[in-house]
Amino acid sequence: MATQKSRQFSVGIDFGTNSVRALIVDVATGEEIASAVWRYRRGKDGVLTDPKDPNLARQHPADYVEGLTKAVAAALRQAKSHRGFDPAAVVGIGVDTTGSTPLPVDEAGLPLALDGRWRDNLGAMAWLWKDHTAYAEAAEITERARSRGEPYLAKCGGTYSSEWFWSKILRCARKYPKVFEAAYAWVELSDFIPAYMTGNLNPATMPRNICAAGHKAMYNDTWGGLPSREFLESLDPRLATVRDRYAHPARTADQEAGKLRPDLARKMGLPPAIPVAVGLLDAHAGAVGSGIRPGRMVKIVGTSTCDMMVVPMTEQLADIPGLCGIVPGSIIPGMYGLEAGQSAVGDIFNWFGNHLAPGRFTTKGDVLENLTREAEKLRPGESGLLALDWNNGNRTVLVDPLLTGLLVGQTLHTTAPEVYRALVEATGFGALVIIRRFEEFGLKVEEVVACGGIAEKNPFVMQVYADILNRPIRIARSSQTCALGAAIFGAVVGGVYRSTEAAQRKMCGTPTKIYRPNRRHAEVYRELFELYRLLHDAFGTPNFPGTLYPVMKRLIEIRDRVRRS
Amino acid sequence: MATQKSRQFSVGIDFGTNSVRALIVDVATGEEIASAVWRYRRGKDGVLTDPKDPNLARQHPADYVEGLTKAVAAALRQAKSHRGFDPAAVVGIGVDTTGSTPLPVDEAGLPLALDGRWRDNLGAMAWLWKDHTAYAEAAEITERARSRGEPYLAKCGGTYSSEWFWSKILRCARKYPKVFEAAYAWVELSDFIPAYMTGNLNPATMPRNICAAGHKAMYNDTWGGLPSREFLESLDPRLATVRDRYAHPARTADQEAGKLRPDLARKMGLPPAIPVAVGLLDAHAGAVGSGIRPGRMVKIVGTSTCDMMVVPMTEQLADIPGLCGIVPGSIIPGMYGLEAGQSAVGDIFNWFGNHLAPGRFTTKGDVLENLTREAEKLRPGESGLLALDWNNGNRTVLVDPLLTGLLVGQTLHTTAPEVYRALVEATGFGALVIIRRFEEFGLKVEEVVACGGIAEKNPFVMQVYADILNRPIRIARSSQTCALGAAIFGAVVGGVYRSTEAAQRKMCGTPTKIYRPNRRHAEVYRELFELYRLLHDAFGTPNFPGTLYPVMKRLIEIRDRVRRS
Repeated sequence: MATQKSRQFSVGIDFGTNSVRALIVDVATGEEIASAVWRYRRGKDGVLTDPKDPNLARQHPADYVEGLTKAVAAALRQAKSHRGFDPAAVVGIGVDTTGSTPLPVDEAGLPLALDGRWRDNLGAMAWLWKDHTAYAEAAEITERARSRGEPYLAKCGGTYSSEWFWSKILRCARKYPKVFEAAYAWVELSDFIPAYMTGNLNPATMPRNICAAGHKAMYNDTWGGLPSREFLESLDPRLATVRDRYAHPARTADQEAGKLRPDLARKMGLPPAIPVAVGLLDAHAGAVGSGIRPGRMVKIVGTSTCDMMVVPMTEQLADIPGLCGIVPGSIIPGMYGLEAGQSAVGDIFNWFGNHLAPGRFTTKGDVLENLTREAEKLRPGESGLLALDWNNGNRTVLVDPLLTGLLVGQTLHTTAPEVYRALVEATGFGALVIIRRFEEFGLKVEEVVACGGIAEKNPFVMQVYADILNRPIRIARSSQTCALGAAIFGAVVGGVYRSTEAAQRKMCGTPTKIYRPNRRHAEVYRELFELYRLLHDAFGTPNFPGTLYPVMKRLIEIRDRVRRS
Repeated sequence: MATQKSRQFSVGIDFGTNSVRALIVDVATGEEIASAVWRYRRGKDGVLTDPKDPNLARQHPADYVEGLTKAVAAALRQAKSHRGFDPAAVVGIGVDTTGSTPLPVDEAGLPLALDGRWRDNLGAMAWLWKDHTAYAEAAEITERARSRGEPYLAKCGGTYSSEWFWSKILRCARKYPKVFEAAYAWVELSDFIPAYMTGNLNPATMPRNICAAGHKAMYNDTWGGLPSREFLESLDPRLATVRDRYAHPARTADQEAGKLRPDLARKMGLPPAIPVAVGLLDAHAGAVGSGIRPGRMVKIVGTSTCDMMVVPMTEQLADIPGLCGIVPGSIIPGMYGLEAGQSAVGDIFNWFGNHLAPGRFTTKGDVLENLTREAEKLRPGESGLLALDWNNGNRTVLVDPLLTGLLVGQTLHTTAPEVYRALVEATGFGALVIIRRFEEFGLKVEEVVACGGIAEKNPFVMQVYADILNRPIRIARSSQTCALGAAIFGAVVGGVYRSTEAAQRKMCGTPTKIYRPNRRHAEVYRELFELYRLLHDAFGTPNFPGTLYPVMKRLIEIRDRVRRS
């Protein structure tokens, strides 16, 4: 432990949807002494899209390799002005990335898209987590696993997602057969970055991380790792090689992936051979950086949400239908990591602000702040509106990308701030569905800690959530919890701590801000949630037995009562 | 008949929601030689509202009496510049108004609100047709009529509306007991105007028109006129006097209400003692002015719609559930008049334009025209959106003001023109539900003639309607069909024609513009209508047996198919 010695530092590198961030942290206290962001340059904010297909979202790998060194170098330059910092005192590096973001690589383990022949081919790009083009393949994988009686779906909520590894690879094999043929193997971005940093790029031996493997690729020790060769071949014979070139066993992020390559170290301004941790997914790193522990849910609220729980592996744990995954060691080594989430949250608010907010909210200042100023004056229920938060499908608990948004209760007087508030509330109700699902399976959600852009910057949204969840919501101390989580693993592989929990205790700090539920609001939201649940079940499940007739009536009753009160 | 004689003229006076119009017409040809509009001055565009109660919509009677003389005088001044016009050649005057728009009057038959004591009391105003504050009273009247086994609901679609006469009066008795007590009687606006013009203001003897009586006040010869004293007293004993002071029998608009008062004639610039016809409701007058006849539906498309049919009284006609009314002589004397309609059409478009259209559509030019330019480029189905047109409740066939709007299918890419188009389509689907209902009861809708502001000015909306209804839609020749219909009755009471049909044949002209359905669009709309019907029945009827699960799925399928095609 760092006591009387000179200070030591860890670097956390966080590959997000639009940019990569490098964070330099004092391993003794978690103090963040420098941070730099490099924004991706290709596509719109780093995302390649197709105007004809709203499901498509890709990323050019050149942004990753450029951004990696640029961000770390910039953070180091900044850190040098900090008293007591010395690049030689960097003991380890951790990495987290979005996912499932698989990319096709050549025999050398380099992304196909870095090769001129494939530079402009959308199939050869990184298939960004939010790419939904593989919905038919996802349905096929789910159906095939069910009909063959395979156990694979039990750990990923009973339904395989279009966002995940095998769906995307199968889609590529069919839609871009030449790309698929040219690819030697497929790697997750969270595997590729540590492999690239350490030079251990052979796809068949590069360390694969349990987090992406378990949550996205149906990897589980129960059935010996990846799904069987026979199962994958039943989907497409060409998938077998993808399986063959995938190193076993997958590893947790407290393990070392290798040492930093000298050439990269030089570019970054670091000494060579610093230990680099095995990667993990950004949300899972964020949960670690937010101080996740048993009973404490971490909610990462940004463009989408991730809702994370950990359960000691000494406890019995049922397979919970609708969860994105239950994976040993995916968050904290030695505990089950549980991931749930909502496919769009901030994305829905931004959509509304960009596409449906009238001029008076957009001409001056930030559109969502302007909407918020009026929306936060409204009382729960008084607009008579109710929405479903499915503009980008539903990840938990329905696991169905082919769902869409819904708004009900409009009159001739409905205003934009009322609709905006209804959308915020819808995401809160979606969050409550997730908590209820955890609790139905015996996992008590004693505390909620939130992090992410919206958690930090949007008190209106967080207060609505506290009222809807009817629980206090604490905000994580760090504003870079993902990068901090990565840095925590950097400190562990750097030998500063013997366990992730020990590192968390020193490096996470305690939440500073807390949102407490307003009891009167919570009561109205309890009523509205019942109606949300009706809509949720009626539009989201095939055999809903009830009637929707009461929805409009009850909304009007609640509206009129609230307005009179 | 006017052949070799010098020309003769009729005046039609049309009291709309925001203004009153006077139209001067050549009785031989229907040529409109002058027209003037006087906009109401009280409230917002003539409508008094309550920010706390979106259901409230009232009107100050001072606007009516001021507007009456101002509009006619202005039209006459204009007509004088027309060659061959002479005020002495005006043979008759007809009047139509909105309704049910009942107002409380004193013993002299004058509106209470013209008295200083009641000038600012919302209960003493005219209760405008679109006032929905009496929804509880309407439900009570429906329930009472049903439980007592009364026949009254059979002619008004099985459900009494919050927009109608008795609901509003009962509401006033309860909400504004002092106003109610001060009122000697209640009159419809369409009764009050001819009574005021002719000086025949005694409420107990002023002619009541069959159109408002039959469609809005449960008046029918089958049960001897108004509902029984016992029935009304079972609702509230105070209603009995309202019944007692209501002249029988109600009369058709081809009858004379009296002669124009000399003082008003002077103010207007007309000779005194011109015959004034019994009034009727604006939509019914519009149907007459559009040339309604058996088999030809007239659709008046404006802020709301009215969908009108006539059936010769020689034919058998079932009571059609969900219609606003089946009333002998309410449109053309000697025929059943059938009224259906949608509570909001243009109102929904305006709401969207005013409240949810982004700045780029509102900064320059007309917001709906700007939205239309992009919306009309979209193909049916390609947005994946579907809406219900219930922002102001549903008049036909559900007869339920406590219904609200709905929009489903939003993604993160949904645009304002897409939503606008979905709202336009929703009103088209609502129109098709009405036609289907007529046809289910054996009334073939052979032709559709449309009139009203949207029919004339919005080719985009009318083409969508033609595609959804899968029928050609013809546009009435006159752009003032309501005032023209009133003028037709003016010509009849003026002795120029012996029947309304004879007057129509000369005065309506033939439709000039025609919208023909696009077969490919019609096919997609047939699919979308099935989904609309699912939403309609699920949210609008208490015991819907089906499931809504297919709605989002099918919308996505249709969207993807259309985009690929």
